Amino acid sequence: MGIHILTADVVVTMNASLDVLTDAGVAIDGDTIVSVGTVAELAAAHPGAPHRHLADRVLMPGLVNAHHHSGLLRGTAEHLPVWEWLRLHIDPMHRVLTPADAAAAAWLCYAEGLLSGTTTVVDMWRYMDGAARAADVLGNRVVTVNYVGAHPDYDYFDTLDDNERMLREWSGHDRVMPWVGLEHPFYADDDGWRRAIALAQRFDTGLYTHCSESEQEIGMFAARTGARPMIALDRLGFFDTPRTMIAHAVWLDADEIALMAAREASVSHNPVSNMKLASGFAPVAELLAAGVAVGLGTDGEKENNNLDMFEEMKVASLMGKIRAMDAAAMDSWQVLRMATTGGARAIRQESRLGSLEPGKQADLVAVRSDTPRMTPLIPSGEYANVHHNLVHAVRGGDVDLTMVAGRVLVDDGELVSADLGEIIERARARVPELFARRSAYLASVDEPEGLMGRS
Amino acid sequence: MGIHILTADVVVTMNASLDVLTDAGVAIDGDTIVSVGTVAELAAAHPGAPHRHLADRVLMPGLVNAHHHSGLLRGTAEHLPVWEWLRLHIDPMHRVLTPADAAAAAWLCYAEGLLSGTTTVVDMWRYMDGAARAADVLGNRVVTVNYVGAHPDYDYFDTLDDNERMLREWSGHDRVMPWVGLEHPFYADDDGWRRAIALAQRFDTGLYTHCSESEQEIGMFAARTGARPMIALDRLGFFDTPRTMIAHAVWLDADEIALMAAREASVSHNPVSNMKLASGFAPVAELLAAGVAVGLGTDGEKENNNLDMFEEMKVASLMGKIRAMDAAAMDSWQVLRMATTGGARAIRQESRLGSLEPGKQADLVAVRSDTPRMTPLIPSGEYANVHHNLVHAVRGGDVDLTMVAGRVLVDDGELVSADLGEIIERARARVPELFARRSAYLASVDEPEGLMGRS
Repeated sequence: MGIHILTADVVVTMNASLDVLTDAGVAIDGDTIVSVGTVAELAAAHPGAPHRHLADRVLMPGLVNAHHHSGLLRGTAEHLPVWEWLRLHIDPMHRVLTPADAAAAAWLCYAEGLLSGTTTVVDMWRYMDGAARAADVLGNRVVTVNYVGAHPDYDYFDTLDDNERMLREWSGHDRVMPWVGLEHPFYADDDGWRRAIALAQRFDTGLYTHCSESEQEIGMFAARTGARPMIALDRLGFFDTPRTMIAHAVWLDADEIALMAAREASVSHNPVSNMKLASGFAPVAELLAAGVAVGLGTDGEKENNNLDMFEEMKVASLMGKIRAMDAAAMDSWQVLRMATTGGARAIRQESRLGSLEPGKQADLVAVRSDTPRMTPLIPSGEYANVHHNLVHAVRGGDVDLTMVAGRVLVDDGELVSADLGEIIERARARVPELFARRSAYLASVDEPEGLMGRS
Repeated sequence: MGIHILTADVVVTMNASLDVLTDAGVAIDGDTIVSVGTVAELAAAHPGAPHRHLADRVLMPGLVNAHHHSGLLRGTAEHLPVWEWLRLHIDPMHRVLTPADAAAAAWLCYAEGLLSGTTTVVDMWRYMDGAARAADVLGNRVVTVNYVGAHPDYDYFDTLDDNERMLREWSGHDRVMPWVGLEHPFYADDDGWRRAIALAQRFDTGLYTHCSESEQEIGMFAARTGARPMIALDRLGFFDTPRTMIAHAVWLDADEIALMAAREASVSHNPVSNMKLASGFAPVAELLAAGVAVGLGTDGEKENNNLDMFEEMKVASLMGKIRAMDAAAMDSWQVLRMATTGGARAIRQESRLGSLEPGKQADLVAVRSDTPRMTPLIPSGEYANVHHNLVHAVRGGDVDLTMVAGRVLVDDGELVSADLGEIIERARARVPELFARRSAYLASVDEPEGLMGRS
């Protein structure tokens, strides 16, 4: 279709100098941004190119949701300590989940993400072919992370065979990025974690696992390995992959942070989940100061319970401030970076995603500014507030347009790449049977096992 | 117009037994709810009454925002420790604020509140005639609290004369409820606080003040009074009014909580503000356990920076859980109660507001349920999630209809009682001059005074 120009009243580029432009935008060729500049500059550089101007909108890069689990349990597994929650709700769900359930959940969650400005999502979930097909049609990017148990006690999760098949079949897709997943390092036996690491090396991809979410894990690692978790993972070879990413990483000491920086491990910070499950305060400021790539994640529908990265940004800011007891801590630019370039770097996509710059993919969102919560809107100068508004005032529902790889997926606030009503209906239709199967499973066992599991 | 019936797929009544009804709603006569029941029950009780059914909607009581300041500084006074923030931004703004600025801010903020389901707002703000006129036209309820300084050092706030005039002129209005305000007990001299208390007694109304927001206040009260803040206020007579309401109340000990319960003081809990300004964790569980009436508040556009009571509910839940390091703490019904019946009780309106019950005012909102974040939606039974969804998943932007006193003010997500675009324009138009006047003031003084002030 040739080069076309998309502009808005204000552009937050998230480039290295955090430039904010007014009456500006991007020129796009296919899936790629070829220029960034003012309306006048773009028109001069690309004479005759079709031009769409979004009045009363702020353009910014699409958001990277660095930790998510698709799912259908929203609001049905609440107010329990984490171990009871796993034992009564989550693990039994995994035992009875079908590929059709899993696919319906992925469709629902990716649609929710697109509608609130998420263009890339890291999804640790089950039966990931269905998730990949959902992303293929819906148009978002997804890092598929199989929810793998590679241990006889956890034989009701995906397997490393499933994961290897994902790597073989989907690695060439331009928007589906298969990684290797482990629910937790302890969900694998010795053969399991060795094979997971080897898979990531062989396919030149990432290895993703939960770790150090709850304080109890420190003791478990000490008992099993004699070391703190990150030290133990390093000794086991977990950081000898092209990229190992740790979800949560709440309970770290200074040595572990230094090690993660040195080994280029990355982190997803999930503030809503960490508060809702009472996991604790992650040392985000210290991780960022050490140069660790930190992305921001919503976690799943059952840990959050929505997938609104704007809300996640706000809670990241709030949590950083109350943790430090300092209103000046965790500033808005730091938070915006985690949700864009930080997440892109955490998933090894910093050369392609995370900012509006020439040569990067055309992944962007337009946020409404004709709203009370964007009043006033001051793009530059002493009282510039566009970054503060994006973090603290705007919500995902203010997203008006979402584009991935040059394709408009949400326009005028409506999903255009698929029928949202059908997606919701399909998800709803699966819930009663999923719950019935889970109840039947729970009735069939004397006492559901207490697992060393986590979300 | 006679009795009419309004129903929806699900109704969350917030009555004493927390009944959730399906295919149900209310019959309304003028400004009053006359019946609550299923569609069939309402039709039988009121044959021939006009009936509107809201498909894919959840009906619930309108939300009570128990602490707010209207304003125009959104996002322009960020990332500063609270004293610097007051010295450089907030107090100089108060010195140059005009009645027209104040009115424009009230229009903007009340519109934002209505669009996100707030039907009653407690607004401590300036030149409150303009705010009352805004509420009169927009249709919301407002507790007007003049931002009073009754001390020679704070002569740039409203005065008790202004406050007394509000009490005389507006006390008869059915939706405007004037209270007596003091920015802080220390913003009044001896005559000032005595007159404030006497005014509340004479007009049989409430007295509202900030207190115990920051830990420093404990030391200030000890130095000035020899006692902790609530003990000191009690000795000064602050609790000898029909209702004294304390904004924030973060730093309380057990004796103070017991005293507040005994003296029927009420509290507004403002979790986003308390995190954003790094004020601390309010003892909400203890206040509720003691029987203190606790409402939930957003605080102002500069402390939050939006006025979304759904988001406030979520952060209240999250903050309660991480404070206790217990995922089971601060359950969703407790949070919903704070935002509805708790707020109504805190402002002495529990007989009229806060729940959908016969005889109460027809203040209600309809929330969209045809969204990913309301999927699944289970109104009752073992896995009932409607209350969890309202607290953790829904956002203010999902509000589709807002009614106050039987009058529809927001319909199909749009403000119908005034022109939102004009309101936003009017607010934006005032900002450059307000900032210019503030800059001129700051340039005219060697060093802005450091005040014992707070938001």
